[in-house]
Amino acid sequence: MRLSQFHLHTSKEIPADAEIVSHKLMLKAGMIRKLASGLYTWTPLGLRVLRKVERAVREEMDAAGAIEMLMPSVQPKELWEETGRWEKFGGQLLKIRDRKEAWYCYGPTHEEVVTDFARNELSSYKQLPVCFYQVQTKFRDEIRPRFGVMRAREFLMKDAYSFHLGDADLDRQYRVMYDAYSRIFSRLGLGFRAVFADTGAIGGSASHEFHVLADSGEDAIAFCDGSDYAANVELAEALAPGARPVASETLRKVETPTQKTCEAVAELLGIGLQRTVKSVALFGNVRDGDAPDQKPGFVLALVRGDHSVNEIKLAKLDGMADYRLATEAEILEHLGGAPGFLGPVAPKQPITVIADRSVAAMADFVVGANETGYHLAGVNWGRDLPEPAVVADIRNVVEGDPSPDGKGTLAIARGIEVGHIFQLGRKYAEAMGCTVLDDSGKAATPTMGCYGIGVSRIVAAAIEQNHDDNGIAWPEAMAPWQVAVCVINPKKDAAVAEAAEALYRELAAAGLEVVLDDRGLRPGAMFADIELIGIPHRVVVSERGLAAGTFEYRQRRAEAAENLDRAALGQRLGIGGGN
Amino acid sequence: MRLSQFHLHTSKEIPADAEIVSHKLMLKAGMIRKLASGLYTWTPLGLRVLRKVERAVREEMDAAGAIEMLMPSVQPKELWEETGRWEKFGGQLLKIRDRKEAWYCYGPTHEEVVTDFARNELSSYKQLPVCFYQVQTKFRDEIRPRFGVMRAREFLMKDAYSFHLGDADLDRQYRVMYDAYSRIFSRLGLGFRAVFADTGAIGGSASHEFHVLADSGEDAIAFCDGSDYAANVELAEALAPGARPVASETLRKVETPTQKTCEAVAELLGIGLQRTVKSVALFGNVRDGDAPDQKPGFVLALVRGDHSVNEIKLAKLDGMADYRLATEAEILEHLGGAPGFLGPVAPKQPITVIADRSVAAMADFVVGANETGYHLAGVNWGRDLPEPAVVADIRNVVEGDPSPDGKGTLAIARGIEVGHIFQLGRKYAEAMGCTVLDDSGKAATPTMGCYGIGVSRIVAAAIEQNHDDNGIAWPEAMAPWQVAVCVINPKKDAAVAEAAEALYRELAAAGLEVVLDDRGLRPGAMFADIELIGIPHRVVVSERGLAAGTFEYRQRRAEAAENLDRAALGQRLGIGGGN
Repeated sequence: MRLSQFHLHTSKEIPADAEIVSHKLMLKAGMIRKLASGLYTWTPLGLRVLRKVERAVREEMDAAGAIEMLMPSVQPKELWEETGRWEKFGGQLLKIRDRKEAWYCYGPTHEEVVTDFARNELSSYKQLPVCFYQVQTKFRDEIRPRFGVMRAREFLMKDAYSFHLGDADLDRQYRVMYDAYSRIFSRLGLGFRAVFADTGAIGGSASHEFHVLADSGEDAIAFCDGSDYAANVELAEALAPGARPVASETLRKVETPTQKTCEAVAELLGIGLQRTVKSVALFGNVRDGDAPDQKPGFVLALVRGDHSVNEIKLAKLDGMADYRLATEAEILEHLGGAPGFLGPVAPKQPITVIADRSVAAMADFVVGANETGYHLAGVNWGRDLPEPAVVADIRNVVEGDPSPDGKGTLAIARGIEVGHIFQLGRKYAEAMGCTVLDDSGKAATPTMGCYGIGVSRIVAAAIEQNHDDNGIAWPEAMAPWQVAVCVINPKKDAAVAEAAEALYRELAAAGLEVVLDDRGLRPGAMFADIELIGIPHRVVVSERGLAAGTFEYRQRRAEAAENLDRAALGQRLGIGGGN
Repeated sequence: MRLSQFHLHTSKEIPADAEIVSHKLMLKAGMIRKLASGLYTWTPLGLRVLRKVERAVREEMDAAGAIEMLMPSVQPKELWEETGRWEKFGGQLLKIRDRKEAWYCYGPTHEEVVTDFARNELSSYKQLPVCFYQVQTKFRDEIRPRFGVMRAREFLMKDAYSFHLGDADLDRQYRVMYDAYSRIFSRLGLGFRAVFADTGAIGGSASHEFHVLADSGEDAIAFCDGSDYAANVELAEALAPGARPVASETLRKVETPTQKTCEAVAELLGIGLQRTVKSVALFGNVRDGDAPDQKPGFVLALVRGDHSVNEIKLAKLDGMADYRLATEAEILEHLGGAPGFLGPVAPKQPITVIADRSVAAMADFVVGANETGYHLAGVNWGRDLPEPAVVADIRNVVEGDPSPDGKGTLAIARGIEVGHIFQLGRKYAEAMGCTVLDDSGKAATPTMGCYGIGVSRIVAAAIEQNHDDNGIAWPEAMAPWQVAVCVINPKKDAAVAEAAEALYRELAAAGLEVVLDDRGLRPGAMFADIELIGIPHRVVVSERGLAAGTFEYRQRRAEAAENLDRAALGQRLGIGGGN
C-alpha cells in the first residue's frame, strides 16, 4: 500500500472527551471517528487492525473445530421471553419496534437465537458435540458509553456456543476453547491472563475471563508466580495463615488522640501495620417480624490493618446477603464509641464479630477502644474478648499472599477483560425446550458452553498495553503494516524515490506487509505519523543513505536508528539478505 | 473439511412458505434458517458461499483502489434530518429509540454517515479523489419480506462512496466501478448485464443496475446482441420506424361482434396483429380552476396491437405526470363507444391523441369504431382523422426491436438486480455542508458517487440462474467446496476409507477445496446431498473402483459419471496427474 493512495488522517490535538490512552491514541492516529455516543466508525487504518484480530480469532476457532455461521443481529422478542431475559436483561437491551409494531432487539448476545437454531437443527446425539461461532456486530445500550471502542455500544464480537450430551464432554470442550483463547492472545502478541470468574448475568457454572494486562485495566487480577492460577482479586481466596501465636502482652489502653486510621495508630505506636486490626461496623439482614436479637444484626467485621474488606466475600456469608454499613446511631448504641476508634472488645450490646482468617490467627493486636482518642493494645482472643463468632475469608488478597493452589506466591496486576468462557449448563436448553434423542432413544437436554471475545475491544486493550509517548507500538501481528518505507523528498529526488519504490516492492514480494510513505511530508512529520500509528519497523530511504549504500532502520521501541546495508536490513526484517 | 465434522443438515421437505427456487433450495440444502419475518440465519454451509461472494467483492474493490472502512449500523436521526430523509425514506427505515429516548435508525444505506465522515475528514482537494467502501449488515423494514434472502429485511451489502472535485473525475470513477462490478460478476461465474437505470429514491444522475440473468427475475431487461447496451424494458427507448407508407386502402367499417381485443380482431380479419392499433382511454392532469377544455384532459393513447403501453414513458409527457385511466362515463361522453371498440376516429368531444412513434408511421390500420361490435379498417392519418396531437415513444420495447445505440437488435431477458452504481452528484454534500478547499483555496462542494452490491442477494440470484431438478449447480467460484470425495461404506471397508482419505489429502494439497463425505450414508442419500448442495465435482471411492484402479467422477451438470484413473481424474480437476 502506498500512503498517497490511502486515507491516513492523523491529528495532533488531544480530543477533549477521551479519558484513556487507547481512546486518545486511536483518535489521534485516526483509527476511529465518533458518530454518536458509543458509536464509532472504523477508518481504513483502524479497520486494518480490527481485521487482523478478527482473522486470528477466526483461524484459531476453525483450528479448534468450531464451525462458523452467522445469525441475524435483530432478534424477535418472543425468544427472549422464553428465557425471561426480555425483562431481566435490563436497559442494555436495545429494544426495537418494526413497522408492524412487533418487538425485536438488537442482539447483545445470541444464547436465545442459537438455542432456537439448535432445537430445530439438532435431533440426535450423533450430531453432538458441536460448537458454532460467529463474528458479528452486537449492541449494548450502555448507560454511560465511554473509553472509545473499549466500552462502545455497537461493537464487534466473536461468540461461540457448544452443545453436549454430558457434562464431561462440556468440560473437554471448555478446555479446548480455553486453549484456543490462549493461542489467540499469544499469537496477537498480548500479555494476558486467564482468570477464574463469576458468571455474572449470563449464568452457569465454570467460567474464566481472559484479561489483557495493562496498568489502566479496570479489574485487579491476582495471579500465581508458579502456576497458571489467576483470579479477580475480588474472587481470589486468601488462605488461612499458620496457627495463632501465644499471647505475650498484657491488654493496655493507649492514647491515640487524633489517630483514626490503622496507619496512623501503627505509626504512633511504632509497630507494623499488620499488628493492627480494622473494625468495620455493619448491619446484616434482619427481616421484619424477626426477634430483635437475631444474628447477624449488628456486625463488626475485622480485617488486618494492611488488608481490605472484600464485599463480595462478606455478602456470601449467612445473613449478610444484603448487608449495609451501620449508622452512627447504631454504632453508638452497640459499641458506645465513635468511628475511628471502634473495636470488638466490650461492646455495650451483643454484637456478631466476623473475623477474617488472618485476624483470627493474631495475638497481641491493636484495636479501637470504643472510646474517642483511645485504642487497645496487646489484645488477645479468648482472654480479652470471646473467640470470634464467625471466622471466614473476608478480605482481598494482596501481593505476596500464598497462591490458593499452593504453587507459589500471588502477584497483583490490572487487566482489561477481552474474553470470557462459560459453562452455561442446561439453563437455556431447558427454558427453550431444546432436546435431542440419546443413544437409547430418549429425549435428553444438551448442556451448553458459550465463549465470547470482544474483537473490537482487543484493539483498544492492545494499545493500553503497548504504547509510549510517541504513540502506539503494535505487536507485529496486530500492526496495520509491519514495515514502513519512508522516502525523503521523493518529489525532488527521483533516484531516492526509485530506490524506495524498489525496496517497497522487494519487501512486499518477500511476504512482508509494507506501506510506502510517499506522501512527500517533511521527515519530522512523516516519522511522527509512522510512530504514532505504531508500525513496528521503519526504514528510511534518503539521498545520504543511498550514497552510503545504507538504509536507516529503526524498530518502533528501539532507542535509536541504525544504518544498515541491504543484507543486514533483510536479516533484521527476517527475510534474508535480498538480491 | 470432513462432513462428519461439519454441520450439514439437508431436508427433503419443500418448505411451505418458499415461493421461488432459490428460497426452496437454500432451505432444502440447509444454507439458511428463518428466525423471523425477513430475518435469516446463515448456517455453516450457507456462510461458506456468502463468504466467497464477500471475498470476491472485497478483492475487486481493493484492486480498483477503493479503501475499506466500517461505519456503525446504528445511525443518529440528526444526520438523516439534515438530508430530509428521516421522513422521506418511508417505512423501510427501521427507527430505534435508545434508553435515553434519543432516536436512531438501523442503517439501510450510509450516504448520511459517509458524508458526515467526509466533512470531518476531508479538508483539501489533495485528499480527493477518494473512494471508501464497507461490507456491512443493513436493515430495510420491507412491508412484505419474502423470497428468503432475496428480499430479506436484514442483509449483507457492500456499499461504496466516492468523492470528487469535478464531474469529469466522477465519470472516471464511475467507469472504474462499472468495470470492477463487471469483474466481480464475471469471476463469480454469473451471467449478468449492466443495465441503464432510473436512480429511484437515492437521487442523482447517471446510474446502472447490474442484473444476474434468470428466468425468475423480477425485472425485464432489453439488451443489444451487438453491443453492451442494456436497459430495463421500461426504460429502453423504442426507436422511430421508417417513413409512413402511402395509403392504399379505403376506410371501411367491419363487423366485429365479440372481438374486443386486437388479437381477436386480427384473427377475424385475417391480418397481422401489427396492423391493428390499441386505444387506451386516459385522463391527464386537469387542475382545479383550469378551463375544462385544457389539454391533455381526455387522452387516447395509441400503440400497435402487438405492443404494450409503457406507463413510465407516458407519465413523462407534458401534462401526464398523474394520469389515470378514464372512467366509463368519460369514455361514453368523449368517444360515444364502449370499451373494446374504442378508436381515435370521429370522437364526440375533442380529445388528445398521443400516438406511439410506430403508430404514427402506420397506414391502412385497424382501430375501434367507437360503436359496440364494430371496428374501422383501412384507416389513414390525415385522411380519416387528424394527424396525432403528440407523437412519442410510449411503448415497451420488444424482442427484435432495433437497439437504441444502432448496433444491433434487442433481446429481452429477465434479471435480478444485485448491484447498482449511481452518480449522486452534490445532493448529499450540499445538504450536509461538506466542502473542501480547491487548489485556489476556495471552498468547493465535492460531487459523489455511490456503488452498492447486495452480497447476500447474489447467493440467491446465483441459484436462480444455476440449478436443476436435483438442486443447486454452483459456479466453481461460489461453491462451498469445489470437489466432494464420497466414500462408499467407509465403516465396513478400511481400504476404501484409506484410499478416500489419501485422495482427499492429495486434492487438498494440490490447492482444491475438498470436502470428504465420510458420514457413512447410503450412496443414494449421499449423492443426493452432494447434488443438492451443488458441489461442482464429485469423486466416488468404492471397493469396485479400487479393484479396477479407478474413481467414479461426475461433473455436477454432466449427464453421467465416468470411471477415471488417477491421472485422468487429476486432469479433469485441473491439477495434473497426481503422484
